[in-house]
Amino acid sequence: MNKLITFEGIEGSGKSTQMRLVSLTLIEQHVPLLITQEPSGTDIGRKIGGILFNRGHYYMCAETEAFLFCAARAQHVREMIMPALNQDKVVLCDRFSDATYAYQGAARGLNRDFIKIINSYSSMGLKPDLTLLFDLPVEEGLKRATERDNQLKDSSFSDRFERESLVFHNKVREGYLQIRKNEPERFRLIDATRDIDTIRNEVYRHIAEFIGLKT
Amino acid sequence: MNKLITFEGIEGSGKSTQMRLVSLTLIEQHVPLLITQEPSGTDIGRKIGGILFNRGHYYMCAETEAFLFCAARAQHVREMIMPALNQDKVVLCDRFSDATYAYQGAARGLNRDFIKIINSYSSMGLKPDLTLLFDLPVEEGLKRATERDNQLKDSSFSDRFERESLVFHNKVREGYLQIRKNEPERFRLIDATRDIDTIRNEVYRHIAEFIGLKT
Repeated sequence: MNKLITFEGIEGSGKSTQMRLVSLTLIEQHVPLLITQEPSGTDIGRKIGGILFNRGHYYMCAETEAFLFCAARAQHVREMIMPALNQDKVVLCDRFSDATYAYQGAARGLNRDFIKIINSYSSMGLKPDLTLLFDLPVEEGLKRATERDNQLKDSSFSDRFERESLVFHNKVREGYLQIRKNEPERFRLIDATRDIDTIRNEVYRHIAEFIGLKT
Repeated sequence: MNKLITFEGIEGSGKSTQMRLVSLTLIEQHVPLLITQEPSGTDIGRKIGGILFNRGHYYMCAETEAFLFCAARAQHVREMIMPALNQDKVVLCDRFSDATYAYQGAARGLNRDFIKIINSYSSMGLKPDLTLLFDLPVEEGLKRATERDNQLKDSSFSDRFERESLVFHNKVREGYLQIRKNEPERFRLIDATRDIDTIRNEVYRHIAEFIGLKT
């Protein structure tokens, strides 16, 4: 099937949960899958993520952040994603190169051409075939992310990105919506304010249509 | 004084030892100094170095390696080097952007234009004012590096770069010599096969002349 399908959105948009849910359905239908995520889709990427998300690194500069995400992506594409595509798998990936545009470009203000070049080298020019963008107001997303953290662990352990300001997260959201405006064919915009089962059905329908499953 | 002076060369070329020795002399002469190194010149850089040098990561791709060194350099330049230059210090740095050309370009074969771009963004366009290139045959350098490792610790803990082949290290050496050929004014070529005191005197003389100390 040989398709790269990415899940993008702000913190608390539900993309990771929905990726898990749709994976279960696709596995039941015997779709050959790689289910993965950035930056932690490889062992090296997990270690890079440890540096990126450490809230003690509040002084990390934007360029370092961008280079670290691209370092993780370079390894991820070569070690995991390309081999899976070559084995004709459908790859579901939680965040990919669009996140670098939205977070380090739109929100941190790094030069767009610079991001284009490092994205291209890190991903071997690979672009997602389909991207599901989970959109909701930032306040709602962050509220959900905080509730999730409270369930998992002490909320004081929220990571470096969750601790960013509302202004930052609004720029991320706008950044995502802008990329979608530039490439409407690749994107499916998901209204992430709705209930989990409604979204689940919509996500499945988009993917099933795209890879040619009967729905 | 506001000068960036870098120390480059293959493993075991003695550049780090010589940087320490000349630092002592410069400190005695009250030269305001920042003595630093890449990738571990910052706390974030040390953590990045932990990923880069881990010999368990033998499968790390060249692009990831290049992005990680640039991530460390971006932080290093902004957090340490630029502030020191702004305070009119002389910055002595063990490895800098030339190492990315020599190791990830000449030896790993990454595209030169790509390295030029990521070097430029990571260093804010900053170039060394003076570069001391410690040159010696690869066999001799690696022999010294191994002896040093044996003194420090079990040699089986040699890092991912020391464990590379002679062919690899010869490409690094040739890479350095090529950069020097393109920018002869910036470089001082140090014959690193000689004894430590002879080299020490020469290194001091080059730096003293360059920053205008009486020798």
